[in-house]
Amino acid sequence: MTLTVVGSIAFDAVETLSGSRDRLLGGSAVHFSLASSFLAETRVVGPVGDDFGDAERDVLRRRGVITDDIEHVPGGRTFFWAGRYERDVNVRHTIQTDLNVFEHFRPKLSDASQAAETVFLANIQPDLQREVREQCTRARFTALDTMNMWIDVARSSLLRTISMVDCLVVNDGELKQLTDEPNHVRAARAVLEMGPTVVVAKQGEYGAAMYTRDGVFGLPAYPTADVVDPTGAGDTFAGGFMGYIAAHIEQDLSDELLRRAMAYGTALASFNVEAFGTERVQTLTGAEIHERVAALERVTRFDAAPVPLRAA
Amino acid sequence: MTLTVVGSIAFDAVETLSGSRDRLLGGSAVHFSLASSFLAETRVVGPVGDDFGDAERDVLRRRGVITDDIEHVPGGRTFFWAGRYERDVNVRHTIQTDLNVFEHFRPKLSDASQAAETVFLANIQPDLQREVREQCTRARFTALDTMNMWIDVARSSLLRTISMVDCLVVNDGELKQLTDEPNHVRAARAVLEMGPTVVVAKQGEYGAAMYTRDGVFGLPAYPTADVVDPTGAGDTFAGGFMGYIAAHIEQDLSDELLRRAMAYGTALASFNVEAFGTERVQTLTGAEIHERVAALERVTRFDAAPVPLRAA
Repeated sequence: MTLTVVGSIAFDAVETLSGSRDRLLGGSAVHFSLASSFLAETRVVGPVGDDFGDAERDVLRRRGVITDDIEHVPGGRTFFWAGRYERDVNVRHTIQTDLNVFEHFRPKLSDASQAAETVFLANIQPDLQREVREQCTRARFTALDTMNMWIDVARSSLLRTISMVDCLVVNDGELKQLTDEPNHVRAARAVLEMGPTVVVAKQGEYGAAMYTRDGVFGLPAYPTADVVDPTGAGDTFAGGFMGYIAAHIEQDLSDELLRRAMAYGTALASFNVEAFGTERVQTLTGAEIHERVAALERVTRFDAAPVPLRAA
Repeated sequence: MTLTVVGSIAFDAVETLSGSRDRLLGGSAVHFSLASSFLAETRVVGPVGDDFGDAERDVLRRRGVITDDIEHVPGGRTFFWAGRYERDVNVRHTIQTDLNVFEHFRPKLSDASQAAETVFLANIQPDLQREVREQCTRARFTALDTMNMWIDVARSSLLRTISMVDCLVVNDGELKQLTDEPNHVRAARAVLEMGPTVVVAKQGEYGAAMYTRDGVFGLPAYPTADVVDPTGAGDTFAGGFMGYIAAHIEQDLSDELLRRAMAYGTALASFNVEAFGTERVQTLTGAEIHERVAALERVTRFDAAPVPLRAA
């Protein structure tokens, strides 16, 4: 029931209306694994530099995340991203991106990480995602995230990698860009024809949708009035979603089970945005997660009892 | 249990990737009333010119819509709108708007229209909406729609009118613009402080959200792969929503009841986009509506049964 995630480990400098922070622990693999750790044993694969110390590693360890495959590059510096959010936090500006040790990253998975039944390929170069996919010979459910840049500059490699995974988890706009199809149902169908059996479109403040051969599942976001820092919300969602699947990998991955995975992802993402970086998820409890999943059910539930309709 | 709607009656010229039409029956009051007619007796108030004939009136009459308060302006021409949708139907360009008889429209309600318990003020100048609201002394539930132009040019009148209705039904972006609040939960709360007890935000392809003092209800759109013409989808939604409320106006308007109203609105809107203008709703049957509401429940349902979570 182990889950392996390969992706970035970063320091983020973030400015929002609520304040600013110079050096937050971040990166896709960090946000993902902190979320997934509530549901499944998670191993992180990713590079760090000399500036990544015990304090950072302990944030992951305290949540039971296995950090053995975090690769320390001597003399290097950890990936750094700086960004600013407008008052409308849906609008983000990147101020600085220093790839640092991430630039020449070639994932090296230990035997234990390779043996994971559930694998998440966070947003990295699609050739590298494929290398990881090929190493994970015992994987029973694999998913990948990507971004607009790879769709633009590495399209054929990305399509080849997508054909090798069970699930694509991307932003709504990226799903449309990837398939050149503005209708989200048709865009998802196009991906289902490429190989994956599950497509998840992240819709930001509107929630997320999941497309399988059984149909469509739409789930609104948990309504949060106080968004402090949206950085990592998508990775946190993916961590909750994949963590739930990893915890149930011995079972048939039914549509019902995948829907519950969507709910856990959505609930976890809603906590992530309540504070800077990983601050909120670091203090999160299982009871709080259960409470939010139940709240999410209350937000979405209705009863379709038929009413008499007037004939023409 | 009568519902009165005041709004535009129009001819639309529409161009989409699926084709084009020169002269479609349209307008907010038309789309609204065809939808609401499945649920409640509906009276339409709005102006038409000499070009509006029996063929158009019969489209409404066949659905049992009461057309007595459609005002014929002799020598005038009916409101005309021409627009083009891109391949991505979420992007719309207005080519021509001829207000015609709509320019000097002053709503005149018959006693029967004034006596309605449920009233919808479609998107017209807010002073006129307020005049109608004041005439409907027996109204038990009133709602209004508006648009970005009135928020810009008639803000104080609009705010005064909003304070006099029970419900605001607007696009998501307009809700944020009206309240100058980019967070949708805070935007809705701001409107709930202005007087209305229900706020509905239409989110286009993402669905709709409803905010009441009891909390938030989020409902995804029905996933439609074949959108032919989105014109009137919002008004059709409002027609289903208000029609459901009108049919149950003698009951306590509980959150549960309002959620069902959202589902009927969403289902009806999903039919409207399947063909040009009102073509699809004209042929719609009650059985199809029930089926779609049930399908919408399947699209949204999940079971939040708690799972064991891993401690830190």
